[in-house]
Amino acid sequence: MENSAPLPQPLDLSHHFSYVTKLRQASEVKDLYKYFKANTANLAGGLPHVSYFPFDTLEAGVALPQRLASHQEQTSTRVTVPKESDTVNVKEKIDLSTALQYGTAEGYPPLYTFLRRFVREHLHPNVPYADGPEITLSCGSTDGFSKVIEAFVNPWNPNRDWIRDREGILCEKFTYMSPFQLAKPKGLNIVGVPMDHEGMLPSGLEDVLENWDFRQGRRPHLMYTVTMGQNPTGGTLSLERRRAIYALCQKYDVLIIEDDPYWNLQYGPSNVNYNAEGVSSGYAFLDSLVPSYLAVDTEGRVIRLDTFSKTIAPGCRLGWITAQPAVIERLVRITEVSTQQPSGFVQSLVAELLIGQSRSQSHSTSARASKTAVEQAWHVDGWVRWLEGLRDGYHQRMQAMCGALEKGKYLISENHESSGHESTTTAADDEDVAWNLVTKTQMYDFHAPTAGMFVWVELCLSTHPLAGQVELPKLSRALWFHLTRAPFACLVAPGELFAPSAWAQADSWRFVRLCFAPMAFEDVEALTRRFVDGCAAFWQKKDPSEVEDDIKLA
Amino acid sequence: MENSAPLPQPLDLSHHFSYVTKLRQASEVKDLYKYFKANTANLAGGLPHVSYFPFDTLEAGVALPQRLASHQEQTSTRVTVPKESDTVNVKEKIDLSTALQYGTAEGYPPLYTFLRRFVREHLHPNVPYADGPEITLSCGSTDGFSKVIEAFVNPWNPNRDWIRDREGILCEKFTYMSPFQLAKPKGLNIVGVPMDHEGMLPSGLEDVLENWDFRQGRRPHLMYTVTMGQNPTGGTLSLERRRAIYALCQKYDVLIIEDDPYWNLQYGPSNVNYNAEGVSSGYAFLDSLVPSYLAVDTEGRVIRLDTFSKTIAPGCRLGWITAQPAVIERLVRITEVSTQQPSGFVQSLVAELLIGQSRSQSHSTSARASKTAVEQAWHVDGWVRWLEGLRDGYHQRMQAMCGALEKGKYLISENHESSGHESTTTAADDEDVAWNLVTKTQMYDFHAPTAGMFVWVELCLSTHPLAGQVELPKLSRALWFHLTRAPFACLVAPGELFAPSAWAQADSWRFVRLCFAPMAFEDVEALTRRFVDGCAAFWQKKDPSEVEDDIKLA
Repeated sequence: MENSAPLPQPLDLSHHFSYVTKLRQASEVKDLYKYFKANTANLAGGLPHVSYFPFDTLEAGVALPQRLASHQEQTSTRVTVPKESDTVNVKEKIDLSTALQYGTAEGYPPLYTFLRRFVREHLHPNVPYADGPEITLSCGSTDGFSKVIEAFVNPWNPNRDWIRDREGILCEKFTYMSPFQLAKPKGLNIVGVPMDHEGMLPSGLEDVLENWDFRQGRRPHLMYTVTMGQNPTGGTLSLERRRAIYALCQKYDVLIIEDDPYWNLQYGPSNVNYNAEGVSSGYAFLDSLVPSYLAVDTEGRVIRLDTFSKTIAPGCRLGWITAQPAVIERLVRITEVSTQQPSGFVQSLVAELLIGQSRSQSHSTSARASKTAVEQAWHVDGWVRWLEGLRDGYHQRMQAMCGALEKGKYLISENHESSGHESTTTAADDEDVAWNLVTKTQMYDFHAPTAGMFVWVELCLSTHPLAGQVELPKLSRALWFHLTRAPFACLVAPGELFAPSAWAQADSWRFVRLCFAPMAFEDVEALTRRFVDGCAAFWQKKDPSEVEDDIKLA
Repeated sequence: MENSAPLPQPLDLSHHFSYVTKLRQASEVKDLYKYFKANTANLAGGLPHVSYFPFDTLEAGVALPQRLASHQEQTSTRVTVPKESDTVNVKEKIDLSTALQYGTAEGYPPLYTFLRRFVREHLHPNVPYADGPEITLSCGSTDGFSKVIEAFVNPWNPNRDWIRDREGILCEKFTYMSPFQLAKPKGLNIVGVPMDHEGMLPSGLEDVLENWDFRQGRRPHLMYTVTMGQNPTGGTLSLERRRAIYALCQKYDVLIIEDDPYWNLQYGPSNVNYNAEGVSSGYAFLDSLVPSYLAVDTEGRVIRLDTFSKTIAPGCRLGWITAQPAVIERLVRITEVSTQQPSGFVQSLVAELLIGQSRSQSHSTSARASKTAVEQAWHVDGWVRWLEGLRDGYHQRMQAMCGALEKGKYLISENHESSGHESTTTAADDEDVAWNLVTKTQMYDFHAPTAGMFVWVELCLSTHPLAGQVELPKLSRALWFHLTRAPFACLVAPGELFAPSAWAQADSWRFVRLCFAPMAFEDVEALTRRFVDGCAAFWQKKDPSEVEDDIKLA
């Protein structure tokens, strides 16, 4: 972007805030603390004194950022959160006297400051509205989504409210369901949009919005979308499609909730620089990633959810929300009266990992006489290196799974003329096995994911020997149970778990989702083979009663 | 209690659930895991492998339980959460491979199991309904309250809804305001109930409920109450009053939300045994505490909020909710789609502190060669000892503050006849200083708190020399600003911060709340003197312009 003209201000979105959100007010206690100066005695706040905290230090053995790239070198270090640091600047002070005290809803100041800078300078250096986005920390993206819904949705009760007041949310036809478990009981209309293996189709979205049937309620003002490593399909939305979809969202005044847990796990070409026309992220790796919707968000209608669940660990329950400042302000108000702030335990330990103590503090942080390793925080360089190492690790996993799936997707039946009996094997490739009568049956198909953790496998159930006798959805169900039993003993995620609308449910039986994340790397191929072998065995069932048994034995 | 008859089942409260809460369903993914057995390959769940967690151990320097009682002995130990424990039982397994993975909304199994037992056997051993209460962990009591409101409240919008549908919540006239910052924007009618220095008055409650004006909306179906160390008044509700109030709640079908962060900070006689007629808690200290509303909850209409904020540290953002099982089940559903679970960092470290590793694990938990201290978890004994130590510590603080307040509550003006000038002092007690013409003016009054962290000070502003010339609320405001400035430089909490209803706001200017928690123990008395001296100086202002200046300079 060569913007010499000043960037536009983000739009005023307050017409979208829920009734309850419009009424929220900042805590009055905060006003009081304006009068709190260095020597003021605090007789007001109910803050327990630090001497009553039973934790004296928090410490951790942690990886060095290069661990995932190299198993040879020293890959461990330690971090320590001391009880009290004498750092004065609260944006740099990491200690238990602050982290374990009541804090600010935006997040623990040093961590908030680090993340805000990471977001604005490195992750999204080219957000096209004036002054750029703001952030607030969340207790993970499920919490973040819940707060966004609180901010923008008026619950709707068919027994009490007019249908014209019913609100709606757009999403990919197949998508992650947890958000809709929250949204559905609130009466939100869940509106699936057609998609392909890349993600949502602009033409499909236009069709939905342009021909909206108002007898269903209001035209949706929200979109929930996973655009990188889409869950479950593994697609990544191109910049071109983002522009096309964003233009439709502008036209129909839709807010985009971009949930992006897999943004760093992109398997596309690494020699692309998406920031070539604008400000660089400062890192070739980050520049090579397809950018967020924020990169095309001229109006400030994107609310992005990030999480540490896939980059550090799910149990962190720590993430952040990025959006225009006026939206973040309302989300902070919601946080003040619910979660207040993420736990100081995880905030301070992640702050130590990413930021560390100010240099002058590094020797006073531990009372232990012998330190087995030098404490060494990651800083931005290390964090980016870790993220790239994760990408490389998941890329190898993806290749191992997709290799095994590719190898096994055809069932080869050989009819030996001499013996008259039939033997089967799965074919390594699609070359003909010419010396015998051969039947080659495709059991499933898939696109290798361009990002994320999942392979979305389409079952070719119409090729099954029983396809004419047993309903295909029932065959699909039988296959699922068949796979759970020895010797295959594997659990795959059935398509119905990713189908929030009735329309998607209706053909969700065609799909299963496989994940290459939960096992040791060495096991990815062998465990994928269990699925492949299970399919091969299932495709040899020729008696409907076998399928009945699969379901009955469940 | 000598119950030979079986205890009654708790009431079905489902008529009180909000419309949205009634519709919530359990996650379908959970059904799938029924088929997950020991050797099943998990290709379904999006769980990152533990080798991708950069945290190898979590460790902490921690207090021994006796630290607060004795400054002489060794009072420190260490706890370590290892990456992987080979304990098989998930209720005992404390390690990062479980704590940092996706978990269960009820709480981290070992911590949940410990707390559930602590609640049922030690904290509330005599809950009078069949099978006793259930618990679920929360991200602190603010989060817990927010979820309870989600469960039981239909938001109400005056522009859309009938007044007859407006719901209400009862509370003490003066109370902690944070819950009402959540509740007010939802359209809940906040209904203050008359109180005295012990807490809510049954006669006041009866008057409100019996003579309910339905033109204000529905009769309230919820009560929010802080009954031990009431915030701000420091009162503790007797068992007799609990019975009387509970009977009214039965009569009018009200649910009691008991928020009890200060339950262990009770300063009453320690030789009482509240469990003498029933099952002992197993600890004289716990038996000596006025019991929760749960002790009289024959119908299962009490929902109790506990927190580690005051017993470990506010930054934990960790607590639990106790109620009948059917209520807890709905709160778990709400948790699954919002916070999911408290952070595994705090859950595992608190679990290590309270429970520790199974004995067989204690030597494999740390790779470090030299351990400076034996690792020693607290267990229930240590936890109760710590709670009692906190009580003793806060008791001393309370006495230091109340002693200084008592000493200084009168302003003594001596008119020396010889010099004709007037000198003032604050009187150590109320003995007459006979040798001169003396004016003794009471500046404030208070009841020493029977529990908690606060002293609720009633300002006697009508004794101020300017009482006839300046409106008392304005005098109160001027005093507040006057106190913030040197040499007094102290911040007290003005009464208006504790007055959620207009009725309470109207005379909230009569009060300020002082807290004896945030400072070092050694400073409690001196900092209280700043308030006392500030009052003494303020009571000598005789010119209205001085009061104007106090406000103007703010």
